[in-house]
Amino acid sequence: MIYSFNNDYSEGAHPRILQAMMETNLEQNNGYSMDTHTAHAKERIRQEIQCEDADIHILVGGTQTNTLGIMSALRPYQAVICAETGHINVHETGAIEAKGHKVLGQLTEDGKLTPSHIQQALDWHTDEHMVQPKMVYISNATEVGTQYTKAELEAISTFCRQHNLYLFLDGARMGAALTSRANDLTLADIARLTDLFYIGGTKNGALFGEALIIMHPDLKPDFRFLIKQHGAMLAKGWLLGIQFEELFQNNLFYEMAEHANEMADQLRTGIADCGYGFHWNSTTNQLFPVFPNDVIDKLEKDFLFSRQAVIDEHHTCIRLVTSWATRQDGTDAFLQALRSIAGK
Amino acid sequence: MIYSFNNDYSEGAHPRILQAMMETNLEQNNGYSMDTHTAHAKERIRQEIQCEDADIHILVGGTQTNTLGIMSALRPYQAVICAETGHINVHETGAIEAKGHKVLGQLTEDGKLTPSHIQQALDWHTDEHMVQPKMVYISNATEVGTQYTKAELEAISTFCRQHNLYLFLDGARMGAALTSRANDLTLADIARLTDLFYIGGTKNGALFGEALIIMHPDLKPDFRFLIKQHGAMLAKGWLLGIQFEELFQNNLFYEMAEHANEMADQLRTGIADCGYGFHWNSTTNQLFPVFPNDVIDKLEKDFLFSRQAVIDEHHTCIRLVTSWATRQDGTDAFLQALRSIAGK
Amino acid sequence: MIYSFNNDYSEGAHPRILQAMMETNLEQNNGYSMDTHTAHAKERIRQEIQCEDADIHILVGGTQTNTLGIMSALRPYQAVICAETGHINVHETGAIEAKGHKVLGQLTEDGKLTPSHIQQALDWHTDEHMVQPKMVYISNATEVGTQYTKAELEAISTFCRQHNLYLFLDGARMGAALTSRANDLTLADIARLTDLFYIGGTKNGALFGEALIIMHPDLKPDFRFLIKQHGAMLAKGWLLGIQFEELFQNNLFYEMAEHANEMADQLRTGIADCGYGFHWNSTTNQLFPVFPNDVIDKLEKDFLFSRQAVIDEHHTCIRLVTSWATRQDGTDAFLQALRSIAGK
Amino acid sequence: MIYSFNNDYSEGAHPRILQAMMETNLEQNNGYSMDTHTAHAKERIRQEIQCEDADIHILVGGTQTNTLGIMSALRPYQAVICAETGHINVHETGAIEAKGHKVLGQLTEDGKLTPSHIQQALDWHTDEHMVQPKMVYISNATEVGTQYTKAELEAISTFCRQHNLYLFLDGARMGAALTSRANDLTLADIARLTDLFYIGGTKNGALFGEALIIMHPDLKPDFRFLIKQHGAMLAKGWLLGIQFEELFQNNLFYEMAEHANEMADQLRTGIADCGYGFHWNSTTNQLFPVFPNDVIDKLEKDFLFSRQAVIDEHHTCIRLVTSWATRQDGTDAFLQALRSIAGK
Repeated sequence: MIYSFNNDYSEGAHPRILQAMMETNLEQNNGYSMDTHTAHAKERIRQEIQCEDADIHILVGGTQTNTLGIMSALRPYQAVICAETGHINVHETGAIEAKGHKVLGQLTEDGKLTPSHIQQALDWHTDEHMVQPKMVYISNATEVGTQYTKAELEAISTFCRQHNLYLFLDGARMGAALTSRANDLTLADIARLTDLFYIGGTKNGALFGEALIIMHPDLKPDFRFLIKQHGAMLAKGWLLGIQFEELFQNNLFYEMAEHANEMADQLRTGIADCGYGFHWNSTTNQLFPVFPNDVIDKLEKDFLFSRQAVIDEHHTCIRLVTSWATRQDGTDAFLQALRSIAGK
Repeated sequence: MIYSFNNDYSEGAHPRILQAMMETNLEQNNGYSMDTHTAHAKERIRQEIQCEDADIHILVGGTQTNTLGIMSALRPYQAVICAETGHINVHETGAIEAKGHKVLGQLTEDGKLTPSHIQQALDWHTDEHMVQPKMVYISNATEVGTQYTKAELEAISTFCRQHNLYLFLDGARMGAALTSRANDLTLADIARLTDLFYIGGTKNGALFGEALIIMHPDLKPDFRFLIKQHGAMLAKGWLLGIQFEELFQNNLFYEMAEHANEMADQLRTGIADCGYGFHWNSTTNQLFPVFPNDVIDKLEKDFLFSRQAVIDEHHTCIRLVTSWATRQDGTDAFLQALRSIAGK
Repeated sequence: MIYSFNNDYSEGAHPRILQAMMETNLEQNNGYSMDTHTAHAKERIRQEIQCEDADIHILVGGTQTNTLGIMSALRPYQAVICAETGHINVHETGAIEAKGHKVLGQLTEDGKLTPSHIQQALDWHTDEHMVQPKMVYISNATEVGTQYTKAELEAISTFCRQHNLYLFLDGARMGAALTSRANDLTLADIARLTDLFYIGGTKNGALFGEALIIMHPDLKPDFRFLIKQHGAMLAKGWLLGIQFEELFQNNLFYEMAEHANEMADQLRTGIADCGYGFHWNSTTNQLFPVFPNDVIDKLEKDFLFSRQAVIDEHHTCIRLVTSWATRQDGTDAFLQALRSIAGK
Repeated sequence: MIYSFNNDYSEGAHPRILQAMMETNLEQNNGYSMDTHTAHAKERIRQEIQCEDADIHILVGGTQTNTLGIMSALRPYQAVICAETGHINVHETGAIEAKGHKVLGQLTEDGKLTPSHIQQALDWHTDEHMVQPKMVYISNATEVGTQYTKAELEAISTFCRQHNLYLFLDGARMGAALTSRANDLTLADIARLTDLFYIGGTKNGALFGEALIIMHPDLKPDFRFLIKQHGAMLAKGWLLGIQFEELFQNNLFYEMAEHANEMADQLRTGIADCGYGFHWNSTTNQLFPVFPNDVIDKLEKDFLFSRQAVIDEHHTCIRLVTSWATRQDGTDAFLQALRSIAGK
C-alpha cells in the first residue's frame, strides 16, 4: 500500500468535527449560514482576531474565497498584484480573469512579495490605457512553503495604505504559518495589517470551509449578494459553522497545524541528513526537496507525491505535504526508504 | 418549540450517509473528485439512467450547477428561455446574467413551460440586434410544486431538437417529482429527453451535492475546467461521491423522497378538509395553501414557514415544504393546530 | 427609386459638420479625446446644461454609451429597471447582461416608466437571493416615439433619489424630444433631474457620436478606464469633438431636430386625414401607423420602412422615421401615394 | 509651433477618403454595414487576400477588433498567448481579461513570438487547474516596430496548426509591415497562414476602421451578434465601407504606408549618422532611438514624441512615429535639430 504526501487534504476531518456534525444532524437550522452555529463560530473568530466589528463569511473552498474576496474590492478595470507563484495566478484556471480582472504576477525569489515588487507594478501602470492596480494578494504560508514575518507584513501593509491599495491575505494554509517555528504573527496582527483575509479549514482538518474576514469597511456592504450570485452560498450553511466552532474551541485549529509542521520538520531534517537540498526554503508543511531522478523513481513505488519542477537533466524537485492526519509511521517509512536508497 | 416547514434542507443528512462518511474518514483519497467513491457513484447513476456514456459531475450546490450547466452550452450572445418563476430567473441573484447571458422568463400558469411558450420567445428574437435563444431551462419538480408528465416532456424535447435548442432540466427536487403519485417519468426517460440535467441531493437527504449529467456530446469537453474556474471543484471531492453512492444504493434516494411526498399528501388532504384552497396545484413536497391572514398569524406561533404571495387584503398564500426528515408528529401537530383554528 | 423612412441614420451628416472635418483634417491633434476641439465642445455643452462641473465623454455609439453608463454605476449583483420596450432590454443583444447585470423590464402602456412601475420592481427584489435594483433607465424620446413631460421626469427623479436609485436617461433621440410641440423640458432640466444622460448625435445629423454627461459625483472617477477597456476610446477622438462643436454652435442641433419633427408632423396629419390610426401616440419623429396589409404592400413599392407589429390578421403597424435629412418631396410623395391608395 | 512624431494617428484622413465621404453624404444607405459600399470594400479585400470565402467585418477601432476577434474564438477557461509587449497584454486596459480570458505574456527579445515561446506556455499549462492556451496573438508590425518574415510566420502557423491553437494577427500597422524593405509577406500569405487577422485603417490614413478577416470556418458563425452586443456595430456602417473602398482602390493603402516608411528610413539613417543607437531594431514606421537626456530635453522644445523607457541614469529611449501625413519638412527639421544638438 502506498502512503500519500500528495497534499494536506487527502483525508476527511478531525474526529471531533465529524462528531459535532453527528450530534447536530437532526436539528432544524436556518439555511444559508443564518444559523446559530455559524453565529457562534463567528463570535469565536472575532475574539481570536481581537476585533468586534469584522464581517465574517464562511465559504466552502479557497478558489471561491479568493474570487469573491478579490472581486468584491475591484472595479472592472482594476487589477490585483501578486507573486508569479501566487495561487490565483496559476492554479485557479483563470478565476480572477473570469471575473474580468487582470492578475499582475511579479517574479519573486521565494514566493513572497515585497514593497519593491509592488512598486514595480505601480510604475508600469500609469494611465487609463493600462489596468489600474488596486489590490495586493499575498499568501501565508505561501504556495512554496515560505511565510511572512511580522516586519515583512507590516512593511507591505504600510506600503499598501500609503498607495491606496487593498491588501488581501490568502490563508488557505494559515494554520501551518501560525504554528511554524519561524512565525511571529498572530491572527490579531493579520487582522490589523490587512483589509481582508481568510483562515483555511480545508487544508487543516475540516471537511471544507474557509473563513473570510473583512476588515475594511468599504468591502463589507452586500457581500452576501456576491456569495449567492456566485453559487457559493451553501444551503446547509451550518455545516460550515459547526466546523469552525470546533476548530476554534479548545485550540483544535492550532493543534492540527502543529502536528503537520512537526511531521514536516522531521522530513526536512531527515532529508537534509541524507545530503539532499531544497528548491525553496520552506518553513511550513510543504517541502520541496531536490532528488536525483532515480531516487524519485524508487520512492514512487511506496509513496505518493507530485513532481514540482525539473531542475536539470538528472534532478527534479518534488513536493511533499504533511497534514493534521499525517501518521508518524508514514514519515518514518519515508525517511527509512530514503536512507536506504541513499545508502545512509 | 417551533416546528419548521420552511424548506427541505433544514436538517443534516440521512444517518446512512453520515455513517459512510465516518467509515471512510481516514482513507487517503485523491482530491478533486478523482477518487474511487466518485467513480463508483457515477457508475451507479449511469446504470440508473441506462446510459453508459453520460458524463457526470457531482457539484456542491444548485445555483452552481445551474450556472455551470447553462454557461457550458451558451456562446456569449445566447440566451436561455425559462418560466418566469424559474429559479434562475428569480432566486439566484442574477447568476446567469453574471456569466453574460440574458434569461428570457416566460409567463406561465403553473410554472411549466410548453412548446408554445418557447415558440413565443423565438418569435421575438430574430436577428443580431437581439440575443439568440439557444437553451430551454425547466425544473422538475417546478418551483411551484408542479411536475411534467412524460408526454409534456416529450413535447418539449421534440420541439427543442427541431429548433436546435439545448434542453436543461433542473432536478434540485427530482426525487419529489419521481416519487409523486402524478409521475410517469423515470431517470432513464429524462436522460433520453434532455441534453443535460441534474439529480438533487441537497433537498433530498444529502448534506449537499447535485449530480449533473451531460448527455449531449457537444457539452462534454473540458467541463472540469469550468468547474475549477468557477471555484466549484471541491478539494475533498470524495465527500460528494460517498453521498451519491449511498443515495443510489438500496433505493435510499427514492425512499427519502417518498417520505417527503407522503408527508405532503397528508398536509394537502388535511388542509383541503378544513376547506382551504391552494394557489398552485402542487403534486410534490411543496404546498401553497391560501389562508386568511389571522389563521396564518396563529399558525406562526408554533410553525415556521414562508409567506409566498399576497392574494388579497385578507388572504395570503404560504409555502409549506416537507422532506425526508419531516416527522409524523410535525405534520400531525400542524393539522391539529389548523383544525383547531378553523374550528373543525 | 425608393425613398426611405427606415430610420433617422440613413444619411451621412449635415454639410456644416463635414465642412468642419475638412477644414481641420491636417491639424495635428492629441489622440483619445484629449484635443482642443473636444475640450471646446464640452465647454459648449456645459453651458447648454448650465452646469460647470459635469463630466462629459463623447462616445461613438448608443449601445456603447448605454453599456458604459450603466456598468459604471452598478456593482456585480445590481440590476437596472426599464420599460419592457427599453432599447437595452430588447435591441442591444444583451449588452447589459454581457456586463453581468440583469435588466428588469417592466410592462408599460406607452414606453414610459412611472414611479409605480419602479416601486413594483423594488417590491419583488428584497434580499440577497435576488438581484438588487440600483438604477432606472429611461429614454427620451422613448423607443415608441413618446416623451416625458417635466412633471413626469420630476416625479421619477424624486422617487429615485428617495430610494437611492441612479437615474440614467438615454437621449439617443434627445433632439426630437426637446423640439417636439409636446416638450416642456430643457437640457438644463434633464441635467438637474438625472444622474447621467446623453445627447445623441448619430440620430440627429452627426456621422456618429453620443455625448454622455455624468452629473452624480460617485460615477465620475476613472470613467476613461472603462471607455478604453471596452474598446470605445476613439483614436482620433477629435472627430467627435468637432461634430459636437458644430452641433452646439448656432443652434444646429435644435434646427435639425425641428426639421425631423416638422416632417413627422406632416406625415402624422396626412395619415390621420386618410382615416388611419396609430399604435402608439408618438409626439416625435417616429410614427407607428396601423394600415391594412394591402396598403402596406403597395407602399412598399416606393418607400422603405419597417413592419413593427402584427395587429390582427389584416392589419399591421409599421414604423416611419423622419430625420434632419428627410426631404419635403419625400414626405409629399408618401402622403400622395397613401391618399391615392386610400382613394382620398 | 511644435511638430509631432507622437503617433501615426494625429491627423485626419487622406483627402481622397474625405472626398468619397462628401460625395456619398446624402445617399440613403442601409445601416449597420449592410450597405453596398461595405459589400464592395469586402469584395476588394477578398481579391487582395486571394480568398473568396473569407468573412470580413470592418470595425471602428483596434482594441475593439482585438477583443472581438479573441473572444469569438475562446471558451471561458481558454487563454491567449502573446509577447509580453503585445498590445493586448499592456495597452488595452485589460480588455481581454474583461471578457474573462487570461493573457499569457511571454518575454521576448524583439516583440516577436517564436514556436519555442509558445511551447513554453503550453508546457506550463497542463490540466484543468490552469487555463487552457487556445490562441496565439501576434502583431505585424509589432509594437516595437519589428516584423515577421514569411519563414517566421510559416513556422508559427505550422506550430499552431499542429497544436490546435488559433492564430490571430493584429494588423493595426499592417501597412507599415507590408511596405517595409524587410518585408517578404503579402496579404494573401497572411490570409493563408492565420485563422483571423485584420488590416488597420486608423494608423494608415483612414479616419478610423479596421478590417477583420476571418479565415477559420469555426470562427465565422454569428460574429455580428458579438459585434452588436459589444456596442461595436456602427449605425452608419457605410462610413467604414467607403474608407476601405478608397484604401484598396488605386493602391492608396500601400502608397500611404510607403510614405510613412520612407520618412522613418530618413529618420533612422539620420539618427544613426549622428552616432546614436536604437533600443529595438525597428524596420517600420516606429523608431526607438536612445538619446542622452539633455538631447531629449532640447528636442522636446520643437517636437512632440513620447519617452518609452529609461535606459540608465543618463539615457532614455524615445519613440518616434511617422505616418502617411508626415511632412518632409518635419523630418528634415528633426534631423537638422538633432545634428545641431549633437554638434554634427
